[in-house]
Amino acid sequence: MKLSRREFSRLGAMGFAAQMLPAARLEAQDANRRIGYCVIGLGRIADHFIGGVQASSTSKITGLVSGHRDKAEKFAARLGVPKSSIYSYEDMDRMRDNKSIDAVYVALPNSMHAEYTIRSAKAGKHVFCEKPMSTSVSDAEDMIAACKTANVKLMIAYRLQYEPTNLRAIELIRQGALGKVQVIEGANGFYETAGEWRLNKPMSGGGPMLDVGIYCLNATRYLTGEEPESFTASVSTIDHDGRFDTVEENMVWTTKFPSGIVASCSTSYGANLKSYYRVTGSKGWLEVGSYGYQGIRLQANYRSERGTPPTVLDEPNTERDPKQFTRETDHFTQCILENKTPKTPGEEGLRDMQCMQRIYKAAGMVAL
Amino acid sequence: MKLSRREFSRLGAMGFAAQMLPAARLEAQDANRRIGYCVIGLGRIADHFIGGVQASSTSKITGLVSGHRDKAEKFAARLGVPKSSIYSYEDMDRMRDNKSIDAVYVALPNSMHAEYTIRSAKAGKHVFCEKPMSTSVSDAEDMIAACKTANVKLMIAYRLQYEPTNLRAIELIRQGALGKVQVIEGANGFYETAGEWRLNKPMSGGGPMLDVGIYCLNATRYLTGEEPESFTASVSTIDHDGRFDTVEENMVWTTKFPSGIVASCSTSYGANLKSYYRVTGSKGWLEVGSYGYQGIRLQANYRSERGTPPTVLDEPNTERDPKQFTRETDHFTQCILENKTPKTPGEEGLRDMQCMQRIYKAAGMVAL
Repeated sequence: MKLSRREFSRLGAMGFAAQMLPAARLEAQDANRRIGYCVIGLGRIADHFIGGVQASSTSKITGLVSGHRDKAEKFAARLGVPKSSIYSYEDMDRMRDNKSIDAVYVALPNSMHAEYTIRSAKAGKHVFCEKPMSTSVSDAEDMIAACKTANVKLMIAYRLQYEPTNLRAIELIRQGALGKVQVIEGANGFYETAGEWRLNKPMSGGGPMLDVGIYCLNATRYLTGEEPESFTASVSTIDHDGRFDTVEENMVWTTKFPSGIVASCSTSYGANLKSYYRVTGSKGWLEVGSYGYQGIRLQANYRSERGTPPTVLDEPNTERDPKQFTRETDHFTQCILENKTPKTPGEEGLRDMQCMQRIYKAAGMVAL
Repeated sequence: MKLSRREFSRLGAMGFAAQMLPAARLEAQDANRRIGYCVIGLGRIADHFIGGVQASSTSKITGLVSGHRDKAEKFAARLGVPKSSIYSYEDMDRMRDNKSIDAVYVALPNSMHAEYTIRSAKAGKHVFCEKPMSTSVSDAEDMIAACKTANVKLMIAYRLQYEPTNLRAIELIRQGALGKVQVIEGANGFYETAGEWRLNKPMSGGGPMLDVGIYCLNATRYLTGEEPESFTASVSTIDHDGRFDTVEENMVWTTKFPSGIVASCSTSYGANLKSYYRVTGSKGWLEVGSYGYQGIRLQANYRSERGTPPTVLDEPNTERDPKQFTRETDHFTQCILENKTPKTPGEEGLRDMQCMQRIYKAAGMVAL
């Protein structure tokens, strides 16, 4: 039985009960059932997601939303999506009648996450939304409320919270391998070129903090398992070449957690920062390199007692893109099928939005 | 002519004129003249300094100040220092009459730097003082004033400002190899064990910020060539085992420089942090590992134009301890002989003290 009672009830309430088979037959049939995703926005990250779904045995692409019909039709032909399951942004609400679509994947510029999450929820679809969840705390709250009202699930695509090397890092910390963690350092940033939507605040909601700094922020939260007590931050723009007319160029911040663990993090659109986090405790350290789609690697050096030989780890994750996308999608699919709350629900995205609001405020900027 | 006119005058004013030879003979004789240093405090760092002086062709150890006469006599025997040039803390002011002592090296716990710098200045000796310069801004100001009044030189032992790999890093940045520098990250910290004077605020003046964090702070200043515009900071103590009853355990801070360069730095006595700084600009990065007495290494990766092959550097400094001490001592000796201002005078130490006062304030602590 892949569909839970609650899920079954929901489908019933939405008028599908008549189409549903008796439970026993449903169970048999559902062993091969895949959850159908409609991709909203066919940009670069959608390619990774689609690749991830194609490699999945639990999910499939069953719909597309795009402003470019031609582009969507090419995707559809390649993916075996019927033309009738291609929507424009204007008419995508019609997908409520498309029973092949169970969920949407929101791969739009940040500022559109809220609208399309809410419209998808109202269309009765579960929502898998890219990070950052939104461009404001209130939008994030509205998204959660809309999904609750529609009784659909909402998951934010924090793919690294499903990635084995990051899970291994968390496990080592929880086991006490590093002793008492004291300091976390992290950075993520890249040189962004003129003309990208990320540099347009009405679309992006903010600069590198929202786009890539969020990985450091989220990591400090999942590595500690704590919610930040306080933040401090400094923001700057060095290049006055038009790229940073609406968003910040650099942000550095510190975080203090209730246990006393402190973090110092950096993000930038003005330079290709080393992409990593490093956790140092009384017994040693671990470092995970890259927040990327592949090439993640854990290095560590710790010792159980002073004077004893250290444990030295160097563990590259050799998985290749789009494995991370497959894994997070499989998780959401499983949550839908088993009526469980995703590990990274809307509330997780909201917490990051609240944190980033506090970081921007600490830097003396207008809050999100 | 190694002694400048001003230096010669000073010696004359101090009553040595009768002993001085005519200028021409002095010059010939002084080609072999070494500046004599009296070491105040025979702790661990004094060993490194003494080794540095022994390897120097410009300087020599000519006096010792210690609270342990036996220990001092062993040092004296080894170094060829006459017993008459051994002083206690109480009677060290007598060194004003010891013409073999040109300068002192203050290697005491931080809180004693001010008193012994001022007493040494009053005894007519140049002062080479370890970092941190003092435990308060006002002490630093008093030290500078005392040395000015006594017309003696004051240098703070910022050995890395004389170290070739750090100078190379500065040169690469000034040449624009990294493009526009955006972000500097740095950390320095170690696990400090119970009972060390560093953990006793009345002796140390503060925790890891003053002792090892200062290296990151000073590096951000010499790497940028700018004075910080603002700081933010978070401080914490995790271990309540008595070690941190008077000083902080962890400090993370951000700095913003007038150009917009931002820095995020970490220091700790609760964990062996990676000891490094990393500078990232629009064209690439450089990283210098270790603030230690040896084993410093520069790595860099930058490209003049996008799409061109990068310049990749990996330059270990193979010099061994106590070379850094020889080099900084030679510099101070040269300043004394040529009547020049040291590259890292008291004012440089004062600036760091002022910065650290601002960092402590930013962290909500009582200022220095």
